[in-house]
Amino acid sequence: MDISARNCLKGIVKNILPGSVNTEVILEIMPDVEVTAIITKSSAQKLQLAIGKEAYVVIKASDVIVAID
Amino acid sequence: MDISARNCLKGIVKNILPGSVNTEVILEIMPDVEVTAIITKSSAQKLQLAIGKEAYVVIKASDVIVAID
Amino acid sequence: MDISARNCLKGIVKNILPGSVNTEVILEIMPDVEVTAIITKSSAQKLQLAIGKEAYVVIKASDVIVAID
Amino acid sequence: MDISARNCLKGIVKNILPGSVNTEVILEIMPDVEVTAIITKSSAQKLQLAIGKEAYVVIKASDVIVAID
Amino acid sequence: MDISARNCLKGIVKNILPGSVNTEVILEIMPDVEVTAIITKSSAQKLQLAIGKEAYVVIKASDVIVAID
Amino acid sequence: MDISARNCLKGIVKNILPGSVNTEVILEIMPDVEVTAIITKSSAQKLQLAIGKEAYVVIKASDVIVAID
Repeated sequence: MDISARNCLKGIVKNILPGSVNTEVILEIMPDVEVTAIITKSSAQKLQLAIGKEAYVVIKASDVIVAID
Repeated sequence: MDISARNCLKGIVKNILPGSVNTEVILEIMPDVEVTAIITKSSAQKLQLAIGKEAYVVIKASDVIVAID
Repeated sequence: MDISARNCLKGIVKNILPGSVNTEVILEIMPDVEVTAIITKSSAQKLQLAIGKEAYVVIKASDVIVAID
Repeated sequence: MDISARNCLKGIVKNILPGSVNTEVILEIMPDVEVTAIITKSSAQKLQLAIGKEAYVVIKASDVIVAID
Repeated sequence: MDISARNCLKGIVKNILPGSVNTEVILEIMPDVEVTAIITKSSAQKLQLAIGKEAYVVIKASDVIVAID
Repeated sequence: MDISARNCLKGIVKNILPGSVNTEVILEIMPDVEVTAIITKSSAQKLQLAIGKEAYVVIKASDVIVAID
């Protein structure tokens, strides 16, 4: 599947925190740089996410805020 | 300002495409890895974004999708 | 690619309205039921979207609001 | 109330999974086609959502991703 | 229509900036406090938004970031 | 940090409802006008949010829907 979301970054699953409805997934996309995702619990199960597994973070450009110091 | 959004990645502005209402901003967060943001035109001007300038991409964890091959 | 977004609905592209930075895409997901997407102009070009083409709308569950009459 | 969100699809509540803060709601918008929403628990209670009840899924166009095979 | 989005704030339209696909709408929700929305151009036309008109800003709780100084 | 999100409203924390993964935070931005945010549990802890504490709600303009009666 090819997707319109402009941001698709490869990473490794570092941590998974299942909740009642949602699950927090932390991926390392480069050494010491992590991205946190909140996805539904059943999606995390469907994708069989596990620590050490390769996965992508996909982010729509309109969901990205820019900031400066 | 300290912010609840879990993802705050440092980058360099690589490209700016102003539109009528929105502006597309591309930042390089690591060699050959870019993140694209769509922000309002006036925000891009307010932040005085320019190619080569250091900036952060800020992304709420609930806006991050996870995918696998 | 398998994706955590829970909503992936098949449709046919009915209309494409390119803007300066974004493009509006209307897809028919069932007779007389349309879904409108705003994606970046370059994504619409990259996916080579055209009227009559089959495509999917992908929506994260946390972006769905529920309403009642 | 008339709303700017471009996507408002009628459906029937098929499943409700209450969590600690959020609730997952699954609606059938056409035979065998479901849409999943994550809303706050108190919103699900306020709307008195129940299986079999008619409801709408409301989605902002800028939250819709387009994908192709 | 009763809606699950938790935030619905009444305001007055202060400014409208139409773009090619999107339109920026600024509403004053209390003296000197404005909220900016980006909606599609056709939604702004459908709602017949005009300066001085009463309108609501509707925001899903999961789209709200919290920050501290 | 200066941020591209157009909406940054000052308020006082009125209520905090921690969940398993997410936490619901209610802030009063003006007398009798509240904004509800859903942020991750660990963000709420990191920001040391507490009832009575001053905080801001930050909302991207593209996440704001407009509605009329």
